Amino acid sequence: MISCEIEIDIRFSETDAMGVVWHGNYLKFFEDGREAFGKAHGLEYLTIFDKGYVTPIVKSEIDHKAPVYYGQAIKVITRYIPTKSAKIQFEYEVINLSTGELCAVGKTMQVFLDKDSRVLELITPDFYREWKESYNL
Amino acid sequence: MISCEIEIDIRFSETDAMGVVWHGNYLKFFEDGREAFGKAHGLEYLTIFDKGYVTPIVKSEIDHKAPVYYGQAIKVITRYIPTKSAKIQFEYEVINLSTGELCAVGKTMQVFLDKDSRVLELITPDFYREWKESYNL
Amino acid sequence: MISCEIEIDIRFSETDAMGVVWHGNYLKFFEDGREAFGKAHGLEYLTIFDKGYVTPIVKSEIDHKAPVYYGQAIKVITRYIPTKSAKIQFEYEVINLSTGELCAVGKTMQVFLDKDSRVLELITPDFYREWKESYNL
Amino acid sequence: MISCEIEIDIRFSETDAMGVVWHGNYLKFFEDGREAFGKAHGLEYLTIFDKGYVTPIVKSEIDHKAPVYYGQAIKVITRYIPTKSAKIQFEYEVINLSTGELCAVGKTMQVFLDKDSRVLELITPDFYREWKESYNL
Repeated sequence: MISCEIEIDIRFSETDAMGVVWHGNYLKFFEDGREAFGKAHGLEYLTIFDKGYVTPIVKSEIDHKAPVYYGQAIKVITRYIPTKSAKIQFEYEVINLSTGELCAVGKTMQVFLDKDSRVLELITPDFYREWKESYNL
Repeated sequence: MISCEIEIDIRFSETDAMGVVWHGNYLKFFEDGREAFGKAHGLEYLTIFDKGYVTPIVKSEIDHKAPVYYGQAIKVITRYIPTKSAKIQFEYEVINLSTGELCAVGKTMQVFLDKDSRVLELITPDFYREWKESYNL
Repeated sequence: MISCEIEIDIRFSETDAMGVVWHGNYLKFFEDGREAFGKAHGLEYLTIFDKGYVTPIVKSEIDHKAPVYYGQAIKVITRYIPTKSAKIQFEYEVINLSTGELCAVGKTMQVFLDKDSRVLELITPDFYREWKESYNL
Repeated sequence: MISCEIEIDIRFSETDAMGVVWHGNYLKFFEDGREAFGKAHGLEYLTIFDKGYVTPIVKSEIDHKAPVYYGQAIKVITRYIPTKSAKIQFEYEVINLSTGELCAVGKTMQVFLDKDSRVLELITPDFYREWKESYNL
């Protein structure tokens, strides 16, 4: 299983009036995780774009286990979840580095659209199949 | 089943470099839906706060069906999902008003924390039980 | 002087850990004000785009006078500030509707770029000159 | 003059439908700059809070010189601007690391409020005067 870890300092603007990170911001942390994964493993947004595709998120889930406060930092672990379909799936774990607690887990699913027509690609694109093969996925 | 509908004009700042609403912003639309539901049906954040609780989101899901572009407006339908446990659950439908398309569905789950201690309330708070009874839920 | 007024309910996600609206969100309120102004007076982003231009913000200023809390609503007054140069200038006033207080004032300046080349247009575009003339500006 | 430099990778969620970083997000970059400055020079938000104060932004300005695109990284230089009044002032420069261009400059001003009463502190707090003296400011 291939994965990637990053650390993020919480921005003040990411907190809400309960004094904790606003729940929707975890989708930004997941995005940061995907980006870092893409850079580390050759699956960047811009590489995909150059191959002729955009890969919008079609499904996302977040389970919150514990709050994160301003002044704390988190670690986001992004794991690639293999699938036979023409999709990109990731799982995420968010660890509060200040407490060691698991504070959230989540999942996302992306599909391939032709970047110009925005038509859904039902068959796994060649470059993605090759990328998966290079990792024995 | 009790529900609430609101209409939202897409903000330019809510779009991304694909020219569509960035997927994470749907959690803001869901929040707008919950707020409007709370106002319409007497379950506002500040009412709950006055009763001694905060109700953080512990789970959220979004399924995207179609993109929404800048210049378009959406309708968010928020439906209360009854549960016997000490939780607040909603389902959401987002309709693109410019095309009539269903563009996203989603769910959220909230729990009750004591507003001062932030300890989880395992038993349905009285005011919430009464609120449910008043709607025969 | 032509202007436009809108009312906005504060989103929970727009507050920060000080319990007030995060300062940067006022630029979203200004954007909402510009949008509404554009719709009311025929100067929408998409109209401008159809004429061949995008109009990025090149300068913005915010002066905060008083905080706005969650649960409150604001009124944004957007005033067009005439200029002889190829620019679009607005001034904004943000009134806290719950207290009647002036809570912020601000300004923005936009320029015209060719939408394809992204080259700066130094001369007032015809459609904009005609728009100004139609309002005797 | 004391200052601090940080590097930031642009998030996809920070772009807008023009394909560039949405102008309001620069206030987040300035916030990141202030945070880093605070950590580097002992003027953190939480240190100030422990001394009994919060320091809201009362004024901010951004001048945009050039766009920043997704896939690019920026450097934010945060410079402390000395003042005799009970205020904290910073200037910012944002450099596009992919092009070397100066893409934005800005300023912010913060005041001291008593953290409980939220009353404005007109006299420079002792800890801040001592902090300034330690840097000969």
